[in-house]
Amino acid sequence: MQELVKIAIDAMGGDNAPAEIVKGAVEAVNEHKEVKIFLVGKQDLIKKELAQYTFDQARIEIVHAAQVIDNNEHPVAAIRSKKDSSIVVAQKMVREGKADAVISAGSTGAILVGGQLVVGRIKGVERAPLAAIIPTTKGVSLLIDCGANVDARASHLLQFAKMGSIYMENVVGKKNPSVALVNIGLEEEKGNQLVKDTMPLLKECKTINFIGSVESREIPHGWCDVILCEAFTGNVILKLYEGTASAFMGKFKKALLSSTRSKLGALLIKPALKNMIKEMDASEYGGAPMLGLNGLVVKCHGSSKSKEIRIAVGQCITFKREDVTGKIKAHIAQES
Amino acid sequence: MQELVKIAIDAMGGDNAPAEIVKGAVEAVNEHKEVKIFLVGKQDLIKKELAQYTFDQARIEIVHAAQVIDNNEHPVAAIRSKKDSSIVVAQKMVREGKADAVISAGSTGAILVGGQLVVGRIKGVERAPLAAIIPTTKGVSLLIDCGANVDARASHLLQFAKMGSIYMENVVGKKNPSVALVNIGLEEEKGNQLVKDTMPLLKECKTINFIGSVESREIPHGWCDVILCEAFTGNVILKLYEGTASAFMGKFKKALLSSTRSKLGALLIKPALKNMIKEMDASEYGGAPMLGLNGLVVKCHGSSKSKEIRIAVGQCITFKREDVTGKIKAHIAQES
Repeated sequence: MQELVKIAIDAMGGDNAPAEIVKGAVEAVNEHKEVKIFLVGKQDLIKKELAQYTFDQARIEIVHAAQVIDNNEHPVAAIRSKKDSSIVVAQKMVREGKADAVISAGSTGAILVGGQLVVGRIKGVERAPLAAIIPTTKGVSLLIDCGANVDARASHLLQFAKMGSIYMENVVGKKNPSVALVNIGLEEEKGNQLVKDTMPLLKECKTINFIGSVESREIPHGWCDVILCEAFTGNVILKLYEGTASAFMGKFKKALLSSTRSKLGALLIKPALKNMIKEMDASEYGGAPMLGLNGLVVKCHGSSKSKEIRIAVGQCITFKREDVTGKIKAHIAQES
Repeated sequence: MQELVKIAIDAMGGDNAPAEIVKGAVEAVNEHKEVKIFLVGKQDLIKKELAQYTFDQARIEIVHAAQVIDNNEHPVAAIRSKKDSSIVVAQKMVREGKADAVISAGSTGAILVGGQLVVGRIKGVERAPLAAIIPTTKGVSLLIDCGANVDARASHLLQFAKMGSIYMENVVGKKNPSVALVNIGLEEEKGNQLVKDTMPLLKECKTINFIGSVESREIPHGWCDVILCEAFTGNVILKLYEGTASAFMGKFKKALLSSTRSKLGALLIKPALKNMIKEMDASEYGGAPMLGLNGLVVKCHGSSKSKEIRIAVGQCITFKREDVTGKIKAHIAQES
């Protein structure tokens, strides 16, 4: 029998914890035969949730952690002082090899700091970026770095490009993924200093499929598979993308409810829109992977329901089965 | 009689030049009694277009310019070498006081470079930013800088905030406009080095209504009146906003055409959507003003039709009538 993939899940993180997180874990073990899940958090609360479900008891184990880090805490202080928090205990399991991956819908700051301090970077990796899978009109793209390293340097971006390509190829299944650098024009002379410093490194790199600049206008149209930028820009892109879609939907709904005629029309178009909305729903694609660490760290939306947790478990299984950490190690070692 | 506001319009710039540009100029003089327009470009072409319309002949004058700068030319080289181009001739009229403002739908790069080199900055203004009026669910916001100065410094951003506030108050008519700095979180410690350097300057500034950080997610919802950032971030925001809206509309149209039922629904919702689309249409708000110069420079979309030119003329009239240049001068001098 194939060895089980071991995943630590922070049962206490997110707006819907622990109920939806536990539910997602149960759905995941019922869907995947090759996974063992450790639910990390307050034992009594998790037990109570688990009692509602039928599942293979041998493949979900509770790991007690008495503390919870909440979103308002300072990430560095919280990770350092709350050694018995669900995030720290879960991440520590990865560092100690007790788990292959960790999933949390908790504080983004704490997850990122913990990724660096608790899980630890692969030797040779200068910075560990957070990547996000974003839906486009053509499928999905990987936006990297979308939140971990502001003021990153060119050498960091080069590594992000490599790690993003490996992830996209092995976990998302896109062969020879194209990489483009976020820029404010396609011409050679365009860009800020970081773009100008990074461009030659990307051009010289033979292990990625670099296709040049991407203007943000083209991102929703799926211009490239890996969208490369430093974390300030990436975070602005990610949040604006979400915000524009939500503002648009809000205005749209208001317009549909504005008259009897439009209400009737709304009923008729509902089925056609359902599919479209599903395609544009980020939670269909699991969580945001933090790459370059000694194991996978997946950050799910704070608003995650069971579905996103279940899909994130699938992400972690593929990550482990395809030995993405090993591939990153080999790749980074080879280049440095 | 009140003195006429004099506006130089680059008749040769944009995808629809000269036809739509000339048409827009005619519409503008027919709408506004207090404006005189100089149409700058190839005399014979402009004359031919003008021949189609009825208007007050005394208020449109052709200024011949034999050359045209196209979008593919290097902006600095083009501005320096093509002294008889429509952009340079039109901008020179502002520098020499023959016009109060200049409008162009031509090469953005050339307009920006010409703004600095030909029109010239107001004394004390360190950098001249390009601002864009963007539609939100609550009305409009001013995004400044959306394309002129990448790698700007904190002192530049402070001036952008002041100039943006003056524009928003006097031209758009928003009293005591709120200003927020684009950031990747609302907490004090968030941000890149530029944000950290700029934040204290904005907090100390008594002449603006600074309300702190804005996450890009909130921009479409009209979180603040003036959205402040350096030009790399601003350009990414502007283009992603446009790109997301267009991708969304594309997917939406496809969904509506996917079945007979949804096609019927589409017919019913059409009138309700028309209003919504009009509200979200950037061309309803004229062009992007470049501020801090010895006169107003307005950059219209390359795809501008007559409507955007006509509205931009209205922008220029208000700018002049409210003496925005004088107010910027007074404000910058007072502070430096």
